[in-house]
Amino acid sequence: MRRPITLFTGQWADLPLETLAKKAKGWGFDGLELACWGDHFQVDQALESDGYLRAKHDLLNGLGLRCLAISNHLVGQCTCDPIDSRHQAILPGRIWGDGDPEGVRQRAAEEMKATARAARLFGVDVVNGFTGSSVWGKFYFFPPTPQTHIDTGYQEFAKRWLPILNVFQEQQVKFALEVHPTEIAYDIITAQRTLKAIHYHPSFGFNFDPSHFIHQFINPIFFIEDFKDRLFHVHVKDARVQMDGRTSILASHLDFGDHRRGWDFVSPGRGGVEWDQIIRALNRINYQGPLSIEWEDSGMDREWGAPEALAMVRQQDFAPSSLAFDTPFANENDS
Amino acid sequence: MRRPITLFTGQWADLPLETLAKKAKGWGFDGLELACWGDHFQVDQALESDGYLRAKHDLLNGLGLRCLAISNHLVGQCTCDPIDSRHQAILPGRIWGDGDPEGVRQRAAEEMKATARAARLFGVDVVNGFTGSSVWGKFYFFPPTPQTHIDTGYQEFAKRWLPILNVFQEQQVKFALEVHPTEIAYDIITAQRTLKAIHYHPSFGFNFDPSHFIHQFINPIFFIEDFKDRLFHVHVKDARVQMDGRTSILASHLDFGDHRRGWDFVSPGRGGVEWDQIIRALNRINYQGPLSIEWEDSGMDREWGAPEALAMVRQQDFAPSSLAFDTPFANENDS
Amino acid sequence: MRRPITLFTGQWADLPLETLAKKAKGWGFDGLELACWGDHFQVDQALESDGYLRAKHDLLNGLGLRCLAISNHLVGQCTCDPIDSRHQAILPGRIWGDGDPEGVRQRAAEEMKATARAARLFGVDVVNGFTGSSVWGKFYFFPPTPQTHIDTGYQEFAKRWLPILNVFQEQQVKFALEVHPTEIAYDIITAQRTLKAIHYHPSFGFNFDPSHFIHQFINPIFFIEDFKDRLFHVHVKDARVQMDGRTSILASHLDFGDHRRGWDFVSPGRGGVEWDQIIRALNRINYQGPLSIEWEDSGMDREWGAPEALAMVRQQDFAPSSLAFDTPFANENDS
Amino acid sequence: MRRPITLFTGQWADLPLETLAKKAKGWGFDGLELACWGDHFQVDQALESDGYLRAKHDLLNGLGLRCLAISNHLVGQCTCDPIDSRHQAILPGRIWGDGDPEGVRQRAAEEMKATARAARLFGVDVVNGFTGSSVWGKFYFFPPTPQTHIDTGYQEFAKRWLPILNVFQEQQVKFALEVHPTEIAYDIITAQRTLKAIHYHPSFGFNFDPSHFIHQFINPIFFIEDFKDRLFHVHVKDARVQMDGRTSILASHLDFGDHRRGWDFVSPGRGGVEWDQIIRALNRINYQGPLSIEWEDSGMDREWGAPEALAMVRQQDFAPSSLAFDTPFANENDS
Amino acid sequence: MRRPITLFTGQWADLPLETLAKKAKGWGFDGLELACWGDHFQVDQALESDGYLRAKHDLLNGLGLRCLAISNHLVGQCTCDPIDSRHQAILPGRIWGDGDPEGVRQRAAEEMKATARAARLFGVDVVNGFTGSSVWGKFYFFPPTPQTHIDTGYQEFAKRWLPILNVFQEQQVKFALEVHPTEIAYDIITAQRTLKAIHYHPSFGFNFDPSHFIHQFINPIFFIEDFKDRLFHVHVKDARVQMDGRTSILASHLDFGDHRRGWDFVSPGRGGVEWDQIIRALNRINYQGPLSIEWEDSGMDREWGAPEALAMVRQQDFAPSSLAFDTPFANENDS
Amino acid sequence: MRRPITLFTGQWADLPLETLAKKAKGWGFDGLELACWGDHFQVDQALESDGYLRAKHDLLNGLGLRCLAISNHLVGQCTCDPIDSRHQAILPGRIWGDGDPEGVRQRAAEEMKATARAARLFGVDVVNGFTGSSVWGKFYFFPPTPQTHIDTGYQEFAKRWLPILNVFQEQQVKFALEVHPTEIAYDIITAQRTLKAIHYHPSFGFNFDPSHFIHQFINPIFFIEDFKDRLFHVHVKDARVQMDGRTSILASHLDFGDHRRGWDFVSPGRGGVEWDQIIRALNRINYQGPLSIEWEDSGMDREWGAPEALAMVRQQDFAPSSLAFDTPFANENDS
Repeated sequence: MRRPITLFTGQWADLPLETLAKKAKGWGFDGLELACWGDHFQVDQALESDGYLRAKHDLLNGLGLRCLAISNHLVGQCTCDPIDSRHQAILPGRIWGDGDPEGVRQRAAEEMKATARAARLFGVDVVNGFTGSSVWGKFYFFPPTPQTHIDTGYQEFAKRWLPILNVFQEQQVKFALEVHPTEIAYDIITAQRTLKAIHYHPSFGFNFDPSHFIHQFINPIFFIEDFKDRLFHVHVKDARVQMDGRTSILASHLDFGDHRRGWDFVSPGRGGVEWDQIIRALNRINYQGPLSIEWEDSGMDREWGAPEALAMVRQQDFAPSSLAFDTPFANENDS
Repeated sequence: MRRPITLFTGQWADLPLETLAKKAKGWGFDGLELACWGDHFQVDQALESDGYLRAKHDLLNGLGLRCLAISNHLVGQCTCDPIDSRHQAILPGRIWGDGDPEGVRQRAAEEMKATARAARLFGVDVVNGFTGSSVWGKFYFFPPTPQTHIDTGYQEFAKRWLPILNVFQEQQVKFALEVHPTEIAYDIITAQRTLKAIHYHPSFGFNFDPSHFIHQFINPIFFIEDFKDRLFHVHVKDARVQMDGRTSILASHLDFGDHRRGWDFVSPGRGGVEWDQIIRALNRINYQGPLSIEWEDSGMDREWGAPEALAMVRQQDFAPSSLAFDTPFANENDS
Repeated sequence: MRRPITLFTGQWADLPLETLAKKAKGWGFDGLELACWGDHFQVDQALESDGYLRAKHDLLNGLGLRCLAISNHLVGQCTCDPIDSRHQAILPGRIWGDGDPEGVRQRAAEEMKATARAARLFGVDVVNGFTGSSVWGKFYFFPPTPQTHIDTGYQEFAKRWLPILNVFQEQQVKFALEVHPTEIAYDIITAQRTLKAIHYHPSFGFNFDPSHFIHQFINPIFFIEDFKDRLFHVHVKDARVQMDGRTSILASHLDFGDHRRGWDFVSPGRGGVEWDQIIRALNRINYQGPLSIEWEDSGMDREWGAPEALAMVRQQDFAPSSLAFDTPFANENDS
Repeated sequence: MRRPITLFTGQWADLPLETLAKKAKGWGFDGLELACWGDHFQVDQALESDGYLRAKHDLLNGLGLRCLAISNHLVGQCTCDPIDSRHQAILPGRIWGDGDPEGVRQRAAEEMKATARAARLFGVDVVNGFTGSSVWGKFYFFPPTPQTHIDTGYQEFAKRWLPILNVFQEQQVKFALEVHPTEIAYDIITAQRTLKAIHYHPSFGFNFDPSHFIHQFINPIFFIEDFKDRLFHVHVKDARVQMDGRTSILASHLDFGDHRRGWDFVSPGRGGVEWDQIIRALNRINYQGPLSIEWEDSGMDREWGAPEALAMVRQQDFAPSSLAFDTPFANENDS
Repeated sequence: MRRPITLFTGQWADLPLETLAKKAKGWGFDGLELACWGDHFQVDQALESDGYLRAKHDLLNGLGLRCLAISNHLVGQCTCDPIDSRHQAILPGRIWGDGDPEGVRQRAAEEMKATARAARLFGVDVVNGFTGSSVWGKFYFFPPTPQTHIDTGYQEFAKRWLPILNVFQEQQVKFALEVHPTEIAYDIITAQRTLKAIHYHPSFGFNFDPSHFIHQFINPIFFIEDFKDRLFHVHVKDARVQMDGRTSILASHLDFGDHRRGWDFVSPGRGGVEWDQIIRALNRINYQGPLSIEWEDSGMDREWGAPEALAMVRQQDFAPSSLAFDTPFANENDS
Repeated sequence: MRRPITLFTGQWADLPLETLAKKAKGWGFDGLELACWGDHFQVDQALESDGYLRAKHDLLNGLGLRCLAISNHLVGQCTCDPIDSRHQAILPGRIWGDGDPEGVRQRAAEEMKATARAARLFGVDVVNGFTGSSVWGKFYFFPPTPQTHIDTGYQEFAKRWLPILNVFQEQQVKFALEVHPTEIAYDIITAQRTLKAIHYHPSFGFNFDPSHFIHQFINPIFFIEDFKDRLFHVHVKDARVQMDGRTSILASHLDFGDHRRGWDFVSPGRGGVEWDQIIRALNRINYQGPLSIEWEDSGMDREWGAPEALAMVRQQDFAPSSLAFDTPFANENDS
């Protein structure tokens, strides 16, 4: 059985969902992972209006598309971050409010609880997202940064997120953190530290996205193996390291898409992710959820790229073997 | 003529200067680059007390050691940084004061001016140091970070540092920023942006330290070539990238010295810096200042390491050729 | 002219030949390389029953499939090996008999002669297979292993196989050893030693299979060039080295398909074999026989993999050039 | 908008143009880059006979093929080279004449002027070609070769080519030198020296062909970036470095196609050129001209290779993005 | 405190111990790891004769040399191996006896118990050695080799060695297996399997020798980390992988020292072992035992090589740091 | 027994021999390889004046220096080259004469015969040198260069050099060509072609210099193995490939010492030559002649570099082993 291949709508939120859904259907996708921004999946309306979710369902069903996860990265980011003007640009006004940092964080936390409830109502079991972090920006330890300073960041995360996760648990919805720089967990070691900080809360796990490991030089396979029971969702996204002696892996304060950066995101299949290895690892841990293409490549037209990425995944998502190596050698035909 | 090889005293500030100076002499160093912390070079006392600098001179001269630069990284860091509790640990109480961030930054700026004056009084032409940065921590552009946001950081740096640099110019002392993550310039591109922000102020240049480029995968030679007229001082320091598929180049919020980090500092000659190439490049640009060993290796006893590093530099700091390739082939002996 | 692309049936012997042949036809193969196990090609029945071979012919011809080689790896392995319980599992009862090692080896040798005769009757010119080895298991020279000890192994091989090869010669059939660890020849140097041991018997050559060289870090092209006159058959099979600092190239006593092994077989095109280079080398030596896919990949469903591999070979098996580089530049149109 | 993909006819000049044009059309090419040898584009006839160009137009138009450039490498080569017997083989008799070197060079120069005129008459804006060089063969500086010796070569080039380029300018046609060993420019540095020698004549630029940089270990992207305003045409051609410890990058006086060479040309997509990166760089500089496949691979049948290469380019020539990274995150839907 | 650097005498057993001990002293070694062959340390005489051990002590003490371990690889090898003629060459006649395999194995087992007793009498706490293996030679799983087959080998090892280890425990001596191909444990995974088979017997651990991991492409650091509590002894030995496309990592049945092998042992410091990393790892786990040079290099005179290796180790065995990174930055001088 | 380490005087010919000889003695060299230019070894004077050679002998003997080879690269170069103004700068006037190319070549040929005679008189058995080549400059086969064209160059070489070699044979002196770009042989394949052209004349062999292979990416070990019977002399010289994406391996018409070249010569031990491997190969073929340092590094003072290189060679020129691997394991002490 093939895994469903979905398209994450986050990078297309400038388009109305209906427009995008028709395109995705035309390209051959099996479903959509709806972003909680643009008009794709509005948490407040989902909870307030009976007809809202029904209309979404009708739209997707009418096209034969499934929705297996929704995603609220932007609001999640604001639950733990030191808030500044950049956050205003990614939040609805009702959450930004007067922009007082602590108020923003608390409203964002409430919205994440609401997102769990909306997911349940929509019949979706997984919410992907970000968490932000109060200590991310201090990852290079100068001025000297004692571990107690970092510990405080993880404690604050736990304090803010345990109540949210309890709502997820009530709603029987999983929260899947996309492990990513700028988040409380951005690699294998910080993912372990994060789990420990929340006492391995059963509703918390990960949205595996290998693109964020490539530029950190982490083997994504190790993440799959180390967190096999916490892999709630998978993003298909790719990144490329482009070193030439002048480019910095820290990206030099340059925009995505600037070729002088030391790394960038590229259309899946054109970067450093070894998809064959990813599929084998997912087969080993028996992951059966969707493969959701998060398409981002500042150097390629997205309507060219999305179907290319879909074709790549279709070619890679092979079935595991059901035979042992030596079955065909057995001499059972002998009498 | 060999370049003088000095020892930067910053990593030895827990020792009284007299103790350290005798050790350095015993190992064979030509001089010291004095740190403005510990009792090594105290800016306030240098300016206030006639005898302070004379005593320092006598101590060094008595041992036959030279001082070609002083360094005030810790105070410099506090001129532009968002101030938090980590900064208190690296500042004298008179600068920290009540810890109000803007007050700290302004007192730090005044101290940097004072450092220029103290350097002049001590007969030293170069002050090395850091600047901090209000935008460093936002180097990964999520939440989406527009260039205007980054520009603001560079403008603020210019506003704070132009007055400082004017004092340096009056005193005929150069400020040499050690290009380094956490600073306003951390690679080639941000160094260019920094120079532009201060309109190429003639008193501002760089303390070249290749160790900070290794883990960014930048070729240090390119830095030398691109900023040959701004290379005011050179640090001999090394770093090693240690990737194994689990370690992250971002270092996972782990302390220096933890082997699970993706990179770390190591004793010069044991890391990724190609010193032969560095020396050739310094020869090409005719750099004639000191080679100052900044010794830092969390896995090695420093008293083992410092003389080892000195021996390495002595072996590497060769003289350039003064002959053209074909001189010996000329047939001048012919008649 | 394109080379025929066949499927080796050894890894499908749990299926009746008829079932497999129909699948292979459906995928687009040109023919089958029949394994002498399962019901695919039974040597005893081929020699005993008039109708057996005719039925095989009819089956293949009816589907438009060719048979250009048969293969008897399992019996061949038992001609020189120290026999233990593992051999019982791969032999028909009539050859295993009471399991006395020397008796098994002699019956296996007779069966290889019979295989030559059956091939001739079936109109096939090449038999692929293994030979086993009495010294393979001592490849690491501890306890100290003198060359005389190894020489004995090669002499024993010659003594057992020269009579077999004489039968092959009478029947005008070639024996093609698949060079492979566990065999008398497993690399370039042991292949040379093997040929020398049998005085370059004209009926003995090789079934070239690059997958067995990849994990030995041998360039398969060199094998093609060194044995160009002895290349009687070609297997298309691939392998992948998967080193991460913990995996051993010796595979740690782990089963095929265990990802902790240092190497494994993978579907052709997904491993370390550079097929473009293989085809160019085969073109240079003018190899015109089949390209026979031996499909083995413990991580992929074989019915997914076989057609994928076939498509890869079709894309790679390009024709050589018939023009010299400078032909089109000649100025013959000039008058 | 997709760039037109054309086929350079130089490697097919043994075929009549009509034959080739029909093949190219059948494979799906958008047009042809006509070589000025064979019967493809004869400069003398183009200038002498009214009907010649009309007939070419009719042939191409009839097939729906465009001609965006013509190429005169062979004659161009003879304008600066030391002439020997090899040049006779690539020149029409009317230019070779009595073979006196200086006479050949002067007649070749006149022919290049004529080529500009013929291009204008044919409605083509770009002429690709070579220039030869009087100093190429002395690239290894033994016997000791002073820069004055090399300078003389560049001055001679300028003296011969400025009059030619003035004719190009009158005709409003560009000359695009294919940067290539054996030419006055063969890498980035010699391309700069070439431009300087002719005072940056506006009619002179480059036909970018990455295959000539691969075996020099030059990153083709750097050429695109450094000469973005001089990139008048693009060849799609590939090369492979094939080092094994015995092969020399200087190719050992071996013919193209001999596998013992250290490098060779291969069908586009099978060599060392990273086409994805090339396309991104061409997008960045907004190159809108043709991608012209110069197909050359001594190990592959050209009729197999040309459509393969075309398919590769079609897959790679993607459109750039028209959206900024953060557009879809904007919260404009908020009220 | 520096670790003692000793010389393993196994490769020098053709010399009388007295001769060797004087050489070793002259080169500057701190002690010897005595081999239980030649006249270096004879287990039977040690147990039978009062004066034997006293004479050894006097010899070593007289030269100021220490003995911190003895080694009995050759006899140990014979406890589990399938015995053949090669074993006769490495065993004393009293253990070989009539050469009946099972008899040899049992006498070898008794000798290992005696070795523990002799070590205790000599005041030595560690015995290094080999174990052999009944399944090593079947490491490539063809004929198909089920895990049950391999399990049998580990069970046999446990049955033979648990009684031996009990004697070691009584004597308060540790047995340190040198993990090595041909042994029951040859990599990380088989070392784990071995420990499990003997229920983690406290007297069993490892003699860490990185040279045996280099040609398996295993990172020796991982072995140190995974078995930090079982590292009873350390060998300084080096190996080099020498691939050229023709050499096989399996070594082609060629003798050590034949340059056509894919790998070989070389003098420490000239191979693939990164000693700086080894020392840091040993520092981390606080290993305080000897660094014992096992010198083996078939291409170098051993009397040239041993002092070279000693000098390399002296340079590498640096002390760990006792300071935290940020100690010198603390502002304690502030008042 | 250690090989003598000599200094080639060619790069020091601007110094009087006496000055240089004293320096070399002071640095610890065992002897000198005298260049036939400057005043080091003047062929005409050696043949004309009785006292000339005696004075040279006395100078060297007085310092305890040996002379094991003389070298005449510059004159040799002019025997086959197309002669131009560069050659005048490297020839004495009596050979250059009127500069007519053929006259120069013939006088150079006579001088090489004279060099053999002078070597004999001086008691030296080997003359190193160059030959030049009439076809070197055409190594890139455009314009299309048929093999017949290249063959002509090798035939011309044979015609010119066979008479010279006959004189060498009469004098019982060997000529050792330094395989080098610009010569008739510049790699393994052209060295084979050269030997064949002169019918394997017994007086012709090679001066092995690995530096000329590094930038061609040839493994120098292969040269040693392929020409083991023709290795008459060894140069210790090193080269470094310095690729950064802009630098060309063809060196861009830039002078030695320009860091923008793709490769350059560097002091032995600082480049790409693996000296440990070279020594092992020389040991294998039992080369017993001198190791002669040809010191050339445009970025380093030669008086710094020569003793550094000498120290490197002393450390590398180890003796081979005289013991088989298993000698120390033999149980001969058993009774």
